[in-house]
Amino acid sequence: MGHEQEPEARGSWVSYRPDIKILDCTIRDGGLVCDHHFSDEFVRAVYEADVEAGVDYMECGYKASKKIYPPSQYGPWKHCDEDDMRRVVGDNPTDLKLSVMADAERTDYKEDILPADESVFDTVRVAAYIHQIPIAMDMMIDAHEKGYEVLMQLMAVSVVSDKDLREGLDVLVQSPASAIYIVDSFGALYSEQVRGLTQVYMETVEGTGKDVGFHGHNNQQLAYANTIEALILGANRVDATMNGIGRGAGNCPLELLIGFLKNPKFRLRPVLKCIQDHVVPLKQDMEWGPKIPYNITGQLNCHPRLAIGMRSGDSPDDYVAFYDQMIEEG
Amino acid sequence: MGHEQEPEARGSWVSYRPDIKILDCTIRDGGLVCDHHFSDEFVRAVYEADVEAGVDYMECGYKASKKIYPPSQYGPWKHCDEDDMRRVVGDNPTDLKLSVMADAERTDYKEDILPADESVFDTVRVAAYIHQIPIAMDMMIDAHEKGYEVLMQLMAVSVVSDKDLREGLDVLVQSPASAIYIVDSFGALYSEQVRGLTQVYMETVEGTGKDVGFHGHNNQQLAYANTIEALILGANRVDATMNGIGRGAGNCPLELLIGFLKNPKFRLRPVLKCIQDHVVPLKQDMEWGPKIPYNITGQLNCHPRLAIGMRSGDSPDDYVAFYDQMIEEG
Repeated sequence: MGHEQEPEARGSWVSYRPDIKILDCTIRDGGLVCDHHFSDEFVRAVYEADVEAGVDYMECGYKASKKIYPPSQYGPWKHCDEDDMRRVVGDNPTDLKLSVMADAERTDYKEDILPADESVFDTVRVAAYIHQIPIAMDMMIDAHEKGYEVLMQLMAVSVVSDKDLREGLDVLVQSPASAIYIVDSFGALYSEQVRGLTQVYMETVEGTGKDVGFHGHNNQQLAYANTIEALILGANRVDATMNGIGRGAGNCPLELLIGFLKNPKFRLRPVLKCIQDHVVPLKQDMEWGPKIPYNITGQLNCHPRLAIGMRSGDSPDDYVAFYDQMIEEG
Repeated sequence: MGHEQEPEARGSWVSYRPDIKILDCTIRDGGLVCDHHFSDEFVRAVYEADVEAGVDYMECGYKASKKIYPPSQYGPWKHCDEDDMRRVVGDNPTDLKLSVMADAERTDYKEDILPADESVFDTVRVAAYIHQIPIAMDMMIDAHEKGYEVLMQLMAVSVVSDKDLREGLDVLVQSPASAIYIVDSFGALYSEQVRGLTQVYMETVEGTGKDVGFHGHNNQQLAYANTIEALILGANRVDATMNGIGRGAGNCPLELLIGFLKNPKFRLRPVLKCIQDHVVPLKQDMEWGPKIPYNITGQLNCHPRLAIGMRSGDSPDDYVAFYDQMIEEG
C-alpha cells in the first residue's frame, strides 16, 4: 500500500479527541476463556471500575441461544438474562452504557432480546462474518426497532477480499448501526493493513453519521499498536479489556489504551486497581496473552483455535511441533 | 506530526528487502536480567540457532570495564574475553558476525578491545547517550582503526530534543559507523514518533552509505510494532531477542520479527527450537516481558529502573501504589 496516497492523521499522540469512545469487553471476550463463568463479584468489580474510569460502554456478555449453549454448561454472561444483570448493576443509574453481543446464527434474537424499555441494556452489538450480513441486517433492524443503540462487528476482516468488503460495507451502511467495527479476529493484521482498512471504512461511512470502530486481538502483540493506528486515521470507537484478558492471545489492554489517549474523561487508576485486585488473581486458573502458538496462527492469518487447543493439551510448549503442523496444514 | 508530508514506504508487508540485517541481542540485553551469568551451553545454543536461522549478527555481551564491573560479581558475557567466547564458538567458522557492545564511560576500550585480527569478534557496537557523543566518536575511531566494523547505538532518543538530535546525528555521520541505531531505551515511542525519527535518521545518512537501525523495548507492547514501522520507512538494521528476553519489559521478539520479514534468508524453526529448549526454561528464575509497571514508566517516558525494582520488591503486583508513586514523582 506504500504507493497509494497517504491518508491524513486525525491527531497526534499529544492531542486528544473528545469523540473517542471506549468499549470494555472484559466480560464478553474474557468470558470466552472460562465459558462465561465469572462470579457476580468479578462482574461488579469491572462494572464499578468502568464507571469510575469514564469508560463509555461495558460489553457484559452474549445473548447466546440457550438451545445451542445450554445454561447448565455456561455461566450467566453467555446469556445475559435481565435478572442476572440487574443482580449486579441494579438499574445501572450511571453514564456507562451496557452492551450485549448478539452472534449471527447463534442468537434467538426475536425472543431473547426484550424491548429496550424493559431491559437494563442500552446497546446491542451484532457480530457476523461477511456471509452472514443478511442475517446481521435483520438482527440490527430488530434491535433498533426494539429501541436499542446498535453496533456492528464485521468479523475476520483479514480473510475478506477487498471487493467483498466494499460490497458488504455498502450494505451495512444502510443498517441502523451507529458504528461499524473493523475486527481483526485472527490477530493477523499489520499496521499498514489497518491503515488501509480504516481508510476504506471511513470513506464508506462518510456522510452517514456512523462511526468506525476497531477491535484487535493480540496474537502478534499488535492489538494495542493497531488500535492506535486505527485511531490516528479516524476510527473513534475502540475496544479493550482489562489486562488484555480474552480468548487465546487476548485483546488490546485497556490500561495501555487509556494511558495513550490522555483524554481527561478517562482515568487509569480505577482500571489498575481492578486489575490488581480482580483480574491478576484469575491467572491462577486461566491463561491469556500473546504466546508463540498464537504468533504462528496470527502470522498465518488463521483462527487461533488450534493454538488454544495446543496450549491446553499435553505439550503446551512444543512450539516446533506446532509450527511443523501448521505449515504442513497450510 | 500529522501535517508534515508523509514519507514514502520502502515496501509492503508482502514484499521483502534482501538488505535487511538482524542483530540478535539475546545474550547482551538478556544478560542484563542475570548479570550476564548465562551458561556456556545457553550461549552456544543461541549461537547455533542464529547460524541456522540466518541471523546476521549475534551480540554476545559487553566489553565492560572490569574496574566498574568486577568479574567476581558478573558472568563472563559482561566482559566477553576472547577465551570465554572461543570456548563457545571456536573461531566462528560461519557467516554469523559476532558483535560486542562497548558502553561509553563504562569500557576500558583502549586496553580491552584487541586488534580485530587477534579477536573472534567482527563488530563493535558503541552505546552512548547524547552527551557522550564525543567519547563515542573516539571509541568508534579506536575500534575502526583496530579493524572492526563499527555500529552506533544512540540511546534514549525519546528524551532528546529535535535540535540536539540533529546536531548529534551530524556528528555521528562523520564517524566510521556503518549503521546508526534509533534506540527507544524507555519503550516510550509511539509509531508516529518512530516514523518521524526514522525519516530524520534516513535524511541524515543519505549519501553516506550508512544504514539506519532500530532497537526497541517492549514496555508498552510496541517493540515489534515500532520495529515494523522503522523498517517500512527504510531502516534496514533491526534488533531482536529470543522470546523478547531483555531487561524489564524486554525487546522485540525475534520469532515475531522473522515471521514478519518473510525473507528467504531467515528461518523461524531453529529460533522456535532454541526458545522452547533453552529460553523458556529460564523463566523459572528470571522475569521479563511487558507488565503494567513497565507500561507506566514507558507512558511516562522514563527509565524502567523503578519498575524493575518494584517487580523484585515486596509488592510486585501493587500497580496502584506504583502508579501513585510515579505520578507523584512527576
